[in-house]
Parts: sequence; C-alpha cells; structure tokens
Amino acid sequence: MASELRVGVIGVGMMGADHAERLVTRTAGARLVAVSDPDTARAAELASRYDGVRSVGDPLELIADDGVDAVVIASPGFVHEEQVLACIEHRTYALCEKPLTMDAESSLRIVEAEAAAGPPLVQVGFMRRFDPEYAAMKAMLDSGQLGRTLLLHNTHRNKAVPESFRSEMIVRDSLVHEVDVARFLFGEEITEITVLAPAPTGVAAEGVLDPQVALFRMAGGGMATTEVFVNCQVGYEVRCEAVAERGTVVAGRNSTGLYSTVADDHGGYWGGQVPPDFRARFARAYDLEVQAWVDASRRGEVVGPSTWDGYAATAVCTAGMESLATGQPVKVQLAERTALLDGARR
Amino acid sequence: MASELRVGVIGVGMMGADHAERLVTRTAGARLVAVSDPDTARAAELASRYDGVRSVGDPLELIADDGVDAVVIASPGFVHEEQVLACIEHRTYALCEKPLTMDAESSLRIVEAEAAAGPPLVQVGFMRRFDPEYAAMKAMLDSGQLGRTLLLHNTHRNKAVPESFRSEMIVRDSLVHEVDVARFLFGEEITEITVLAPAPTGVAAEGVLDPQVALFRMAGGGMATTEVFVNCQVGYEVRCEAVAERGTVVAGRNSTGLYSTVADDHGGYWGGQVPPDFRARFARAYDLEVQAWVDASRRGEVVGPSTWDGYAATAVCTAGMESLATGQPVKVQLAERTALLDGARR
Amino acid sequence: MASELRVGVIGVGMMGADHAERLVTRTAGARLVAVSDPDTARAAELASRYDGVRSVGDPLELIADDGVDAVVIASPGFVHEEQVLACIEHRTYALCEKPLTMDAESSLRIVEAEAAAGPPLVQVGFMRRFDPEYAAMKAMLDSGQLGRTLLLHNTHRNKAVPESFRSEMIVRDSLVHEVDVARFLFGEEITEITVLAPAPTGVAAEGVLDPQVALFRMAGGGMATTEVFVNCQVGYEVRCEAVAERGTVVAGRNSTGLYSTVADDHGGYWGGQVPPDFRARFARAYDLEVQAWVDASRRGEVVGPSTWDGYAATAVCTAGMESLATGQPVKVQLAERTALLDGARR
Amino acid sequence: MASELRVGVIGVGMMGADHAERLVTRTAGARLVAVSDPDTARAAELASRYDGVRSVGDPLELIADDGVDAVVIASPGFVHEEQVLACIEHRTYALCEKPLTMDAESSLRIVEAEAAAGPPLVQVGFMRRFDPEYAAMKAMLDSGQLGRTLLLHNTHRNKAVPESFRSEMIVRDSLVHEVDVARFLFGEEITEITVLAPAPTGVAAEGVLDPQVALFRMAGGGMATTEVFVNCQVGYEVRCEAVAERGTVVAGRNSTGLYSTVADDHGGYWGGQVPPDFRARFARAYDLEVQAWVDASRRGEVVGPSTWDGYAATAVCTAGMESLATGQPVKVQLAERTALLDGARR
Repeated sequence: MASELRVGVIGVGMMGADHAERLVTRTAGARLVAVSDPDTARAAELASRYDGVRSVGDPLELIADDGVDAVVIASPGFVHEEQVLACIEHRTYALCEKPLTMDAESSLRIVEAEAAAGPPLVQVGFMRRFDPEYAAMKAMLDSGQLGRTLLLHNTHRNKAVPESFRSEMIVRDSLVHEVDVARFLFGEEITEITVLAPAPTGVAAEGVLDPQVALFRMAGGGMATTEVFVNCQVGYEVRCEAVAERGTVVAGRNSTGLYSTVADDHGGYWGGQVPPDFRARFARAYDLEVQAWVDASRRGEVVGPSTWDGYAATAVCTAGMESLATGQPVKVQLAERTALLDGARR
Repeated sequence: MASELRVGVIGVGMMGADHAERLVTRTAGARLVAVSDPDTARAAELASRYDGVRSVGDPLELIADDGVDAVVIASPGFVHEEQVLACIEHRTYALCEKPLTMDAESSLRIVEAEAAAGPPLVQVGFMRRFDPEYAAMKAMLDSGQLGRTLLLHNTHRNKAVPESFRSEMIVRDSLVHEVDVARFLFGEEITEITVLAPAPTGVAAEGVLDPQVALFRMAGGGMATTEVFVNCQVGYEVRCEAVAERGTVVAGRNSTGLYSTVADDHGGYWGGQVPPDFRARFARAYDLEVQAWVDASRRGEVVGPSTWDGYAATAVCTAGMESLATGQPVKVQLAERTALLDGARR
Repeated sequence: MASELRVGVIGVGMMGADHAERLVTRTAGARLVAVSDPDTARAAELASRYDGVRSVGDPLELIADDGVDAVVIASPGFVHEEQVLACIEHRTYALCEKPLTMDAESSLRIVEAEAAAGPPLVQVGFMRRFDPEYAAMKAMLDSGQLGRTLLLHNTHRNKAVPESFRSEMIVRDSLVHEVDVARFLFGEEITEITVLAPAPTGVAAEGVLDPQVALFRMAGGGMATTEVFVNCQVGYEVRCEAVAERGTVVAGRNSTGLYSTVADDHGGYWGGQVPPDFRARFARAYDLEVQAWVDASRRGEVVGPSTWDGYAATAVCTAGMESLATGQPVKVQLAERTALLDGARR
Repeated sequence: MASELRVGVIGVGMMGADHAERLVTRTAGARLVAVSDPDTARAAELASRYDGVRSVGDPLELIADDGVDAVVIASPGFVHEEQVLACIEHRTYALCEKPLTMDAESSLRIVEAEAAAGPPLVQVGFMRRFDPEYAAMKAMLDSGQLGRTLLLHNTHRNKAVPESFRSEMIVRDSLVHEVDVARFLFGEEITEITVLAPAPTGVAAEGVLDPQVALFRMAGGGMATTEVFVNCQVGYEVRCEAVAERGTVVAGRNSTGLYSTVADDHGGYWGGQVPPDFRARFARAYDLEVQAWVDASRRGEVVGPSTWDGYAATAVCTAGMESLATGQPVKVQLAERTALLDGARR
C-alpha cells in the first residue's frame, strides 16, 4: 500500500463539497490537497475550511499537478470529457460523477482513450454498487442459490425536483441509476428500452411527464420494470426487487431504521421516516465508494463501475429519451466489442 | 330482511365444495339445500355431509327449483353461460365464479339478458374486492387524501401450477384478477393491454412463458404494471401498490401475521410464512364475499362485481392473449354503453 | 350436528350488542331468540332490530326457558355467579365474558358446581385463544420445533380509558388477558406474580398507576414480563413474543395490514394504522370464538377456556392487585387438584 | 484541528485488532504508530501488516511515548486501571473498551484521578451511543415530542457463548450494555436493579443461568426491563423499545436490510438474516465511535461516555450480580457528587 493518496476535487457544488468533506473527515489513506471551481470564491472558501488545501483556478492544471495523485470530478457533465481525458493523459486516477459525459459518442471516446493508454484509471460514480444492500443482493443473486434472475422491479422516487427538471432529465439523471442497477445485477447489457408516461401528476411542473414507467430487455432475455417518480412528495424511496427462479430479493425495504408509534388527530400510526433525499439514503454508499476508490488508487488499481459502464448507461438513456418521445421500444446499439474495449470492460 | 336464503351449489370440485362448507359452517342467514355435479357420486357424498341437502342431477333443474332462492355457480367456465342465463330466466340469484364465460361475446350476451330481464341478479366471483386490505385501499384512494391515483404495481405469484396450465391460461386465469383489481381501484376501464414475456424460468413446463409482465392503460390515463409468475416456487404472493399524487398504499405486504426467528445450518433468520395458496391468502375475502352475497340476496339486491365487470375482464384478457402472441399492445374494444347496459354497470 | 342453536344474550351493552349482531349476521348454525338487560328499553330496541327476537326482563327466566339452548353472558361481572350457576342448573350452554366472577372464591364455586353437575357447559370469553396469530403461535410452540418455551414478553396498550378506570382495574380487566395468554401458551399455572409501577404518565387520571410492569413465574420455571399501559394515546397495541430454546415467535407485529407512505409538514413517512380499540384488533377472534362455541354447543361439547381457566385468571389477578399495593411478589394459591376439579380442567 | 493523531493500540486480540484495522483503513485523521500485547508475536504480526507501525513490549512505555498522542485500550479489564491511570499521568487520550475496570472502587479511583488532573482524557467504549439508531432514538426522546419517557424494554441476544461464560458474566459483560443504554436514554442514574432467572435453556452450559430478566429503577421513577439471552442459537438480536407518554420508539427492529423470499421442504418464507454477532450489528457504531474519538482528541476534547459512565455501569452490574445471587432487588450506591466529580460527569 502506497502512502497517503493526494486528492484534488474538481467542482465544489453540493456533491463536490460533500466529497471534499468525506475525504477529510471520514476517509482513511487520503489527503485533500487541492480544489478547483469556476466560482473561485466558492473554491477558496472550501479550501480555507481544511488545513493544507489549495484552491486552483484551472482544473486541467490541477489534474496535471505532480502533487496530485487522484481527482474527484464533480463538475457539470458537459466538461467531464475534457477533464477525464486530461486524467488519462497525465495518469491521474479519477472518480468521475455520473454521467460520464452527455452523449454516448463522447463517452465512447473516453473508453477508447483509457483503453489505449494502458491500465485503467477511471471509476464512474454509480454509488449504488457500494450500497451494502445492493452489494449483498448482487452477491446473493450471483451465488446461484435462487437460480437464474428473471425480472427486476425498480422503484425510484424523489420528493420533488426544481421546475427546470424536464421530462428527458428524468430519463438521463434519475433513470440512469436504475439502468446501471439492471446492468450490474444481471451482469448483462440492456438491448432495448421502452419509456412510457401515464397521465402526469398535477404536482409536477407544467408539461413534465412524471411519473414514468420504463422497461428494459436484457441481452440474456431478462426484463426490468422501473417506476421513476421525481415529484412524489413523500421522500426519497429507492427499492429493487429481483425475481429469480426459486425466490426473490428486495433491497431498500428496511432502509429506514427507527420505528415509532405516534398519534395525531386522525388516529394512531406506526412506522418510520422516509429518507428526505439521496444523500441521506446513500450516505454509507458514498463513504464506501470513496474509500474503495482511495484504497484501489493507492494499490494502482481501479474498482467499481468502469468507463464502459458509464458509456453503456449513457447509450441506454439516449435510447430511452427517444422512446419517451416516440412511445415505441428503442434498441440500444453499443460499440462492437473489440479486444481493446473488452479490456476496458473489466 | 327475508328469512333464510335457500342456496344451491352447482359444481362441487375444490371451489364449490369450499363454498358449500362456507355456507354451512360460517355464513349467517343461508341454508344449503341442494348441490349438483356431473360427477353424481361426488355430489351425493358432499350432500351427505350436511343435514337436509339434496343432490340434484341436472343443474338447470336445481336453478329452476322453487325451493332454491340462489345458487353458487362453481362449475367449469364453459357451462357458465347456460347456467347463468337459466338463473336470469328463473329469477334466481347467482354468485358466479370467474370467469363469467370463456369469451367476451358470451359474457356480453349475459350482460344484455340480465339488463333486459329487470333488476340485477348476478354477482361475479372476484373475491379480491372483499379482501379487507383491498377494500381499505379502495376507500383510501377514493377518499382523495392522496390525490389522484397515477400507477398501480401488481404482483401475482403462485407456488406452482400443473403442466397443463399453459401460457395463455396465465393471462386468462391469473392475470384476470389483476385486471379486475385495476378496474376496481381506478374505477375505470382498461383501454389497452400489453403482455410481455422475459426468458422463462427453467422450473415451468416446457414451452410455458412464465413469468409474464403486463401493462394496462386506463381510460383516464393511468397505468398499471403487473408481474404474473405462476411457478415461483415459494408460495402465493399477491401484492398491490398504488401510487398517487401525494403518497402510496400497499396491500398484501403484511398479510402473513406470525413472525419468528429461527436458525438453520447457514445462520439465523427472521421472518414468516408465505401463504401456500390462494385459499389461505383469501380465506377471509371468500367468507366476506359469500356473506355479502347472501345478505344482499335476502334484501333483493346485488352487490359486488357485476356481469359487466365479468364481461370487461374477459374482453381485456382476450386482448391480453393476443398481445402475448404478437408482442404488441392491443386495444380493448368494449360494447357501446347504451342506456340498457349502463344500468347493468351498477 | 343438532339443528340450529337457539341463543339468548344477557346484557346488551357494547359487548353484548356486538355478540347479538355477530350471532345474527355472521355466525352459522345459531338463531338469536331472546335478549335480556336491566335497561329494558335498550333490550327492547335491540330485539326489534332482528326478526323473531324477544326481550325478556329476568335473565334467570331467559336461562330457564326451554326455547333457549345457550346464552351469551355479557352482563357486569358481579352478576355472573348467579347467572352461570343458573345455566348449570338448567343445563344451558354458556359463553361467559371475562371475568368469570369478581373474586376467586366465587369462581371456584362455579368450577365445583359445574364439575359436580356433569359434562361441562361453560366457555369463558378469553377470545385471544381464537385469534389466528395466538392460535398459530400456540401450535408452533407446542410442536416443539423451537425447543422448550423459556420466556414471554407481552405488551398490552390501550389508547385511553375513562377516569373511573383505576389502578387495580388495570390488573383485573387488562392484565387478566395476559394472564390467560401466559397460562395458555405455557400450558401451566402461574405460581407468583409481581406488579410494579414506574412513575405514571401525566396523561392518566390523577392517582392512577399507569403504565404497570408485571412479572409472572410459571409452575415449570418459565417467566413472563408484561407491560400494561392503558392511556398510551396511540391505539390498541397487543403483542406477544415467546422466547424458546432455539428461536422466537411474535404475534401482533403485523396485525395492521395496509401500508402506506404519506407526507406531512415535517417530512415523509411510511407505516400503517394502529387499531383504535380491541374490537378492531380482535374482530376476527370474536367471530371465531362465537362460531366455535355455537358449533361445540350443537355437538353437546365445550371447547376453549374453561371455568377453571376463569378461576385461575381471577386468582392470579387478585394476587396481582395485592402485589401492586405492596410492591412485593405474591404467591398464587389455587385450590387443590381433586379428581373432580381435574375433570373440570379439561 | 491538529495534524494527524498518532495512535497506539494496547491489546490486539479480536477487539484490538479490529480497532487497529479500523484506524488504518477507514478512519480519517489518525495514524496507527504502535501496538502492544503480552503476546509479542501477535503484536509483531499485526504491526507488520501496516506501514510504520511498531510493536512495543510494555504498554506503559507505549502510553508514555512522546510519539503517541492517544491510545485505544483493548486489553483485558483487569489491567485497565493501571493503563488508564498511566494515560492520565502522561496526558495521553484514551479510548478504553468496557468495562472501565473490574469493580466500582477502582473505576471510581480513575474518575477521581482524571478529575483531579485537569481536562478529561478518557472515553469509555460504550459504542451503542454512536449507533445511528440509538442516537436518533435519544434525539427523538430528548426532543420532547413524545412527552416524558416512562419505560424501556431491552432485548439482548447472542447466538452462543463459550462454556467459560458463566451466569455472572452475563450481567457484567452483556447486561452492562443495557445498563449504559438505560442511563443514556433516560439521562439518569439507575437506583435499583433486580436480576431474575427463569428455568435455563437446555442449550447453555451446565449451571449457567441463561436467559436472565433484569429490571432497573431509574432516579426519576422510570423503569427498564431487559432480557439477556446469550445462547439463543439464532444470532445477535439487540432491540430497544422506549415507551413515552404519547408514543413509542424502537431501535433495532429493521437493522437487517436485505429481505428475501425462499422456499424449503416445509414451505415458503419471507424474511432476512439476523446478524451473526455484535461486530456485524454494530460495525457502523464502532466506526463512528472511533472517528468521533479521533476527531475530539485532535481538538483536545473528549466526547461520548465518560469515566463516570464507566464507573456507574460497573457499580450497577456489581449490584446486579448480587441480585442474581439473592433473587432480591439491590440498591445501587454511587459516590457522592462532589464538585470535583460533577466536573467528571461532563
């Protein structure tokens, strides 16, 4: 194990600031050394909270810095391509928040560049794979004790989203997690996607198709159904039920620990709190994701979701947006699996 | 309230014998007076179990009998039309097990005959509507406290079925319950159905498409997703989750009462038993259904699912079988709503 | 099986009126023929609701009536002795609501009188034994699959009680159910009881010791702990956890079926309703209790809790009231088991 | 915030080795620099697993070392007094595993020595206080929204213990956690303890009183009941139910996340795994405990359970062992609260 990993964080909005705090306050083996953000005041403020952290104006300069071993990329998706390619060029380990890039072509360019440059460097931020329940579910399905996996049923609910969050963003930014979950749990590509919309809730912004129902066909013949409902008003509810030949497994059913009984004017109730948002629900997954990334980087390895995973998820969501617009099933076309790319698939 | 209802049971296989026992041992206000079955020995044996019960060879004679006020029709579906029409002719109240008939045309003939003959006489055996949880769910959704209902997610699993139970029977005999549930909870017709099949379980009989995934489009724009899996190996699992604008409701989640912890060679577990079959799960629903039918018949009324409900369910399942064969969505065409038929819709 | 059982109901307050309705509307094989109550107007009003039901002024006349085969005794506890003894004298089957009588001596007189008079006639109304969960729990413990039962933990909570409900009534009217549960599940007598009181809730009436904690020692060495809290504000929560050598069983954990998610001003919640009172929680148990009593009476038998069970429960509660007053464990002294009484124990 | 905390671990059995790994692999701001154990080979082996960790023969030398800022004391309880006093002498921060010492007198000597020496230095390892559910429960009770806390019901079950684990160790080593939980949640001292034993399980070692039932009386009048069952065969089940004036809170009910359905030869079941041991159940609590200790030490502070908490827990358990032997309630006598000691109570 190498000595401490010197880490930079690029983009210090909510997610990047979270990762910075995580690195400093509850991650072993890492040292936050630099942050970068177009909003330089925000970057400077964050840097000032911790000892020995510089604020760097140009993210590419941060990536190229010899004193930086690894970066967390939490900048907006449209600058990811340039930043990830710079990491590959400078042999800097990267944890890139999803989406890898905004379209399948640019994601594929990253896959190819990384594969051509040598051993992998990039982990994509599908944190669900590090959630203890999803990980245990994967292990249970892979053990074969329940036979072959036949179906998945995913539920993805957010309390509410801003008015600017439009119908296609529900596919690209919310459904994308379920795309990765289906690929992860089945261990197969998605070959076809259908995204349908019932009459929308009256609570969403005008014109936004919310909720949505998506169907995936898997390469091996399995299927997945998903409800995405981003203005459900209650809280952040994420569940996954896998149906196998001899049993089922559910993640997310018991995620809220504390259980209470209370009375109000209408009667007495038992139950618990629904997590308010993804940070509350997946706090542990993020911690484990970042710790695993730090540990792997120190060993000179990459674990977890690859750039191919990021590329495939983007390709599926692009097809999904087309399906939402047309109401028809849309086939997912991925790049041919060359020897080079097969290496990239890890 | 009239004096005791004199009831005959037609068809004394598993379901009919169950109803006979229910009438005698745990239903108030009813007297079982006659049974009929093509297997006359079986009918005679059942009659001999209870005081004052005759075995009648011809079911139509039983229906026409002045000493019989009402009949439970638990014979095979293909003789339902003749028997129900005889009930209408003789003004005999009937509780007809589902399916009302084997095809939409004959079901519609019953609807029309009943409507033409006067006040309604026939309740169709969709017992789910009498299950306390489904009934409470309906009441909660109708109360409006959660806003408009947007989506339903139904799960329908049987432990196993005989080899003779083929793909289209999964639609006609299993999915039909979820068809009625969707119509009941939304209070609307289904206008389109899609039935899809993933790669089948290896546990089902050769060539049987099991599990299946169905999508319903409702007249008001809502949608329902359904998993039907009739060889799931575990037990009888029926759940329904309704998603409304400001909350969700789930029936069937806590249906098994007793909760225990036990250890086996692999570790320690908490949990409970999954009901082995529909009779265990819906025992209470059947009791309440039959009591409600007896009570209504004594008042000269009909409650619960109507012949129109039976007709509509058959029409949807017919479309569903076509969808399963073609892989395409199929529109559901119901008869025009004339004044006559509107009366029949109750 | 004899023809219909002709039943009278004595005492038509909440409980008696409930039983009358149960007999008429959802019990097979019974005919309600008479009711009696000191409030003759109330009795007459109830009688007028159903066909062929007389109102009888004197309960002892009702019991002696040749046209009455069996009576439900739902009168106040202090008149039970006279009424039950009259049933024994006239060979009238009786379902006597708990408590059998107000003190152990009078209960014992009933036990002895019944035993001396011939085959048993009296069932005591500990309805919990007919609750499907308690019954399944008993079956599971008796099966031996979990080894010997070591401990019980009972929880008994009511939403609220009237101000007139004093500390000792918590023992006599609430705890008594847990006394019977412990005797039923262990299949043994209670030999010692301790009733302790923490600092009381501020919500109860002045001077009422609520909640209370009771400990039972069983004849075979087992123990039971019980919380009784009759002003818990939330609802009617009754649970029982049995701890055996190789596992545990819990009744009452999943008794509320419907499960929902909702949001209020403070956040989002999942959960369900707590039953408001014992009638909601034990509706099914009462139905099964009365049906079993009717069925047994028609066969000339008695099932369920015996007069000995009623006597023992009263003796334990009397000791419990002494313990509450003194803060000390109190031994329970039951009558010697003579051949006569052993017969009475069934 | 000071730079990295240089930590030594004293005692590298299961618990100490766990803490060493925790410090190295998932704690921020700490550097493991030395370990010590009477089994020098074991200490050397552990030291060799990590970069820059020395093995030190004499634990007091390790404590006195200027290159060590803080120590985790995971040695056997009977050497704690000497080691903790050395920490106080050398102003070394300490996280001392429970029990603080083996008897109340020596624990009180530590309290007094720490108080006399200046600002506090010692955190006692009652990790439950850092478990997210227990912490949330404490917050909910302290918020006052449920009124005053009246009762606690604790359940403490281990799958099995070695034959050397005798009756009194159940009080001292298992019940002690529930002692701390009661003091923590009520925020009050325990004034009286009763420990009772039902007829023991046949699965425990000969002569061991298992399970046990304990009752605590709190200074403010509240009570707590506890079941401790250390050979329950199933797994590690720890639950706590708090009963307040207007509602209840339960921790530990949903602690196992994954939920599945499976079939075996006897039927179909739903449920999940019971954690096999305390390390699985409280992994997160230990992580949070150690991180909080490291963070506080770097700030020059102590958080979490104090030496007074360790002393009080030992005093209660000593009384509990007397109660188990005599079958009588035993009063708990704590040292007078002088100004000095009040400071120590934090």
